[in-house]
Amino acid sequence: MENNIFHLQYAMDTFYFLVCGALVMWMAAGFAMLESGLVRAKNTTEILTKNVALYSISCIMYMVCGYAIMYGGDIFLSGIQNVDVAGTLSDFAGREDGFEGGSIYSGASDFFFQVVFVATAMSIVSGAVAERMKLWAFLLFAVVMTGFIYPMEGSWTWGGNDVFGMFNLGELGFLDFAGSGIVHMAGAAAALAGVILLGARKGKYGPNGEIHAITGANLPLATLGTFILWMGWFGFNGGSVLKLGDISNANAVAMVFLNTNAAAAGGLVAALIVARILFGKADLTMALNGALAGLVAITAGPDTPSALAATLIGAVGGIIVVFSIIALDKLKIDDPVGAISVHGVVGLFGLLVVPVTNGDASFVGQIVGALTIFIWVFVTSLIVWSIIKVILGLRVSEEEEYEGVDLAECGMEAYPEFTSSK
Amino acid sequence: MENNIFHLQYAMDTFYFLVCGALVMWMAAGFAMLESGLVRAKNTTEILTKNVALYSISCIMYMVCGYAIMYGGDIFLSGIQNVDVAGTLSDFAGREDGFEGGSIYSGASDFFFQVVFVATAMSIVSGAVAERMKLWAFLLFAVVMTGFIYPMEGSWTWGGNDVFGMFNLGELGFLDFAGSGIVHMAGAAAALAGVILLGARKGKYGPNGEIHAITGANLPLATLGTFILWMGWFGFNGGSVLKLGDISNANAVAMVFLNTNAAAAGGLVAALIVARILFGKADLTMALNGALAGLVAITAGPDTPSALAATLIGAVGGIIVVFSIIALDKLKIDDPVGAISVHGVVGLFGLLVVPVTNGDASFVGQIVGALTIFIWVFVTSLIVWSIIKVILGLRVSEEEEYEGVDLAECGMEAYPEFTSSK
Amino acid sequence: MENNIFHLQYAMDTFYFLVCGALVMWMAAGFAMLESGLVRAKNTTEILTKNVALYSISCIMYMVCGYAIMYGGDIFLSGIQNVDVAGTLSDFAGREDGFEGGSIYSGASDFFFQVVFVATAMSIVSGAVAERMKLWAFLLFAVVMTGFIYPMEGSWTWGGNDVFGMFNLGELGFLDFAGSGIVHMAGAAAALAGVILLGARKGKYGPNGEIHAITGANLPLATLGTFILWMGWFGFNGGSVLKLGDISNANAVAMVFLNTNAAAAGGLVAALIVARILFGKADLTMALNGALAGLVAITAGPDTPSALAATLIGAVGGIIVVFSIIALDKLKIDDPVGAISVHGVVGLFGLLVVPVTNGDASFVGQIVGALTIFIWVFVTSLIVWSIIKVILGLRVSEEEEYEGVDLAECGMEAYPEFTSSK
Repeated sequence: MENNIFHLQYAMDTFYFLVCGALVMWMAAGFAMLESGLVRAKNTTEILTKNVALYSISCIMYMVCGYAIMYGGDIFLSGIQNVDVAGTLSDFAGREDGFEGGSIYSGASDFFFQVVFVATAMSIVSGAVAERMKLWAFLLFAVVMTGFIYPMEGSWTWGGNDVFGMFNLGELGFLDFAGSGIVHMAGAAAALAGVILLGARKGKYGPNGEIHAITGANLPLATLGTFILWMGWFGFNGGSVLKLGDISNANAVAMVFLNTNAAAAGGLVAALIVARILFGKADLTMALNGALAGLVAITAGPDTPSALAATLIGAVGGIIVVFSIIALDKLKIDDPVGAISVHGVVGLFGLLVVPVTNGDASFVGQIVGALTIFIWVFVTSLIVWSIIKVILGLRVSEEEEYEGVDLAECGMEAYPEFTSSK
Repeated sequence: MENNIFHLQYAMDTFYFLVCGALVMWMAAGFAMLESGLVRAKNTTEILTKNVALYSISCIMYMVCGYAIMYGGDIFLSGIQNVDVAGTLSDFAGREDGFEGGSIYSGASDFFFQVVFVATAMSIVSGAVAERMKLWAFLLFAVVMTGFIYPMEGSWTWGGNDVFGMFNLGELGFLDFAGSGIVHMAGAAAALAGVILLGARKGKYGPNGEIHAITGANLPLATLGTFILWMGWFGFNGGSVLKLGDISNANAVAMVFLNTNAAAAGGLVAALIVARILFGKADLTMALNGALAGLVAITAGPDTPSALAATLIGAVGGIIVVFSIIALDKLKIDDPVGAISVHGVVGLFGLLVVPVTNGDASFVGQIVGALTIFIWVFVTSLIVWSIIKVILGLRVSEEEEYEGVDLAECGMEAYPEFTSSK
Repeated sequence: MENNIFHLQYAMDTFYFLVCGALVMWMAAGFAMLESGLVRAKNTTEILTKNVALYSISCIMYMVCGYAIMYGGDIFLSGIQNVDVAGTLSDFAGREDGFEGGSIYSGASDFFFQVVFVATAMSIVSGAVAERMKLWAFLLFAVVMTGFIYPMEGSWTWGGNDVFGMFNLGELGFLDFAGSGIVHMAGAAAALAGVILLGARKGKYGPNGEIHAITGANLPLATLGTFILWMGWFGFNGGSVLKLGDISNANAVAMVFLNTNAAAAGGLVAALIVARILFGKADLTMALNGALAGLVAITAGPDTPSALAATLIGAVGGIIVVFSIIALDKLKIDDPVGAISVHGVVGLFGLLVVPVTNGDASFVGQIVGALTIFIWVFVTSLIVWSIIKVILGLRVSEEEEYEGVDLAECGMEAYPEFTSSK
């Protein structure tokens, strides 16, 4: 009997991880659609190729070494037959406190859930360096980012690795529930390093300080991508509770779903209104970035705020992102999809706002954690991008950029019948 | 032991609500893709903006007041820490009948599931008023619809609010399982009121009774939207069983999934064949509307029909929608995406067909319920649209309509490189 | 108490089937997007119509007769009220071995999961015969394929039908976990028969052996379709464990999710690299086909390999698909989307590689099974296609093909504003 209950709890928590992981995998499609909708037609095939390839590379590198660096162990090179069911059951029977005692679920489901996170971090980079970075240089960076840079910093908070987990940010009062910092700001830090080395797209900034808007080729795709990310985020944040199978955890998962949705809604409406005030129009791309900013903002602590507080946190994120996008353009940091603002600037805000609703986090801890992550990812990324620049070069030629990277890198246009090749 | 089983049941039912809710949220993307595929390119950015904004407004308004109007209580302004786990457990222990006794699950999961329903009702409106309504007028209506009009009528059947639930339609033999009437026909009634005040698009109807087809700009998007809605509908209907965690409820949920799918299939094939007979071609947009009609038709009672009966109910819905679209065009009620036919006319059919397979519903009850909902929503909407017309105006200028509302309202084209701006 | 645990297990396994089934249904959208992205704009409406119609026809035919042929019984013409809960409970109580004893779940959920599989098999066909086959001829074939050809061969391995299950391939050591052969190679065999009778598209092959690339009109759609299929495949393979609710099954489901993802990643990267070596460019469409090939390759045995082995199996699939696509073009077998290579050639590879990681399968058994399935489907399809050719004709006229099948068959263009009608 007791065993049967454990069987069910184990199966339920495993399934919960798998469903949430599938939703996070789906975010890869969201980034691909968002980014391909926001670049020009001539650079679309290449950004799609980057997105599908970076996801695949993430899966392989995290399996080969990333997971081991972040959490220790290498069980995932072996198959299911090695899972010791009998041992697991006796372990469970030995716990006095029954259900509340810990999370026991399939290790494979844990890996599946974690592997899609690293892909998310890497997806953030591709948008920021779009329309001018060489494809293979980008993919080489993806290998290092997903196999080493991300797993290292991930291990400091979420991991239990004795060797690489030299810091334990959690002990310093740093709290990042689902990764506003560890995933999103980290991705943005890597992107920022790349963008600085890469420079702006031709024609983006004029000689007298003009900023030329370069509009995306396909806004329905960008909207679809945002909806996909919104949906996938339920898995991203909801799965980060790490356990479903008892009342308090089920309540936490439900509250996280609710708050994730509320924050996105708040971010979208706030950005829409701010853009209306600033520009006089209902700016769709700002609204979409507002929704994403709301999602990033709540990610560091979606479990403790009330629904109203979550909406407000998202709304502040949505306001920040509009001003951040404007500010980065003034600094001539050219980020075609606004990824550095959405994931970096708002990711930092998300970390800093946690202590407002969660007493377990401290402002000092959040600042130390944010700085640690940012410095680690930014510096190592700068080094890796620089090495790649020497070996392969980072930027396509001026002519290739003018013609579009699709023909140069992929040999095919994304919409051969819709545009006069330009 | 008993407690542990309850923990599992609570967690399972909560997760079931959350998964179904995420699928219903996904329907927002479906409406956005469907509508943006069926309008002309020059009106695409605006319809996308309306769709993302109405979803967000729905989430905020339902949290602020809609849920309280519909179900009473305001727990959702407070956070998860307020859930009384101990009290819930003792409540469970006190029930003699064990599992069959009731549905106990996270209140947050219930809110999450309900909030996405109100967004669905509102999404229906946006398609019908497309290509000529002012964006901010529409969003203002969304505030009232999702914060007041829908929650009021929802409370009469589904709600338990003592103050506003002045009618109890259920007591009259009215049965609307997942909302053919409460959600779909309600949305269509609000849309109809708007369309009547708004008038037809320029050039849709000629002076001598000609009806000019205005074809959508992007049929793959419309098809994608339909598939998304079809998938999301599993959550919409399947979640409306409201409980999963015992044999009879699990059977009900499974049958609802099966019948939902069968009805959509029946609707699509029937509409395809009818359109072939009438027009001589395989009309894709009619087929898509047929699938949606099948889904709407089964929504009032997806639990009782056999799979064959569900297919036939869907097929009748698919036939009705073709003739309804033709009839509305003859009446010069201009509905660019066919939303009033799909959700209104077929929604009514869905209500009326329930007693055929479900003895708990009566024809009289269904008619009284349908009339009550329609009159309430239509009249209040007409009043609200009229007030908005005075304050903001409902319709863009003729020049803006000719140029496309994208430039006027949003300041950006959806496909700047694919079309010569027209 | 015992009953309550069974209630939970029953509900959990039912829900698992429904979630997996919804993901497989979602693959229909994936095929629709993939195929509509890879054909030319002028043939897009028609391929969309085929995809939505074939899915619907599959659902109807499998309900009417397919399920009965494959598994026996006709319970699905009756409604939920006929499920004998009391009998099910007593059946459970009678089993001594408790949880490990068998899979008991809602029959409706089983049907729902199976019905979406037949749609997948049929979806494979539509891509291969794209851009030149008559729509109604295709739909007529779909009726026979989904109502008879597929259920017959399915019954030989997965079914328990005494009448039609004349072979029991399982007894011969044939093992096809989720259908590399039974679903994917079967679909490809039907497609191959159609393509041979149909001939190549005009202009595809020159008189002197030239092969002209005909590029797809919308690569973001093709990419989206691949991501949808990737996601849906978690349900396709993961649901094929057929049970979730105990530790060993939960572990199996988790490992299947993990390996499915790993194989797709391996296939994509391998195809990308091979195409880079062969063609000098990062070929997006080859990369997408590589991911799909990885998915097909692992489908016959996703439960036994380690994650590393799954990645390698996928990678070999990705390599095979590139060479297969090249080879089929040399043979002038014109398959616009590469479906015969992805699902047929790699499906065969998937069957043959099972014994490497699973001792329960034998090479001889796999070969016998593959041949049986291929010959059955190919020969019956050839007969059916031939009969249809006599009755309706298979191919549109040369003029219709030149103008595009959209206008001839559907009477509407997919992108009326983006292309000069050609």
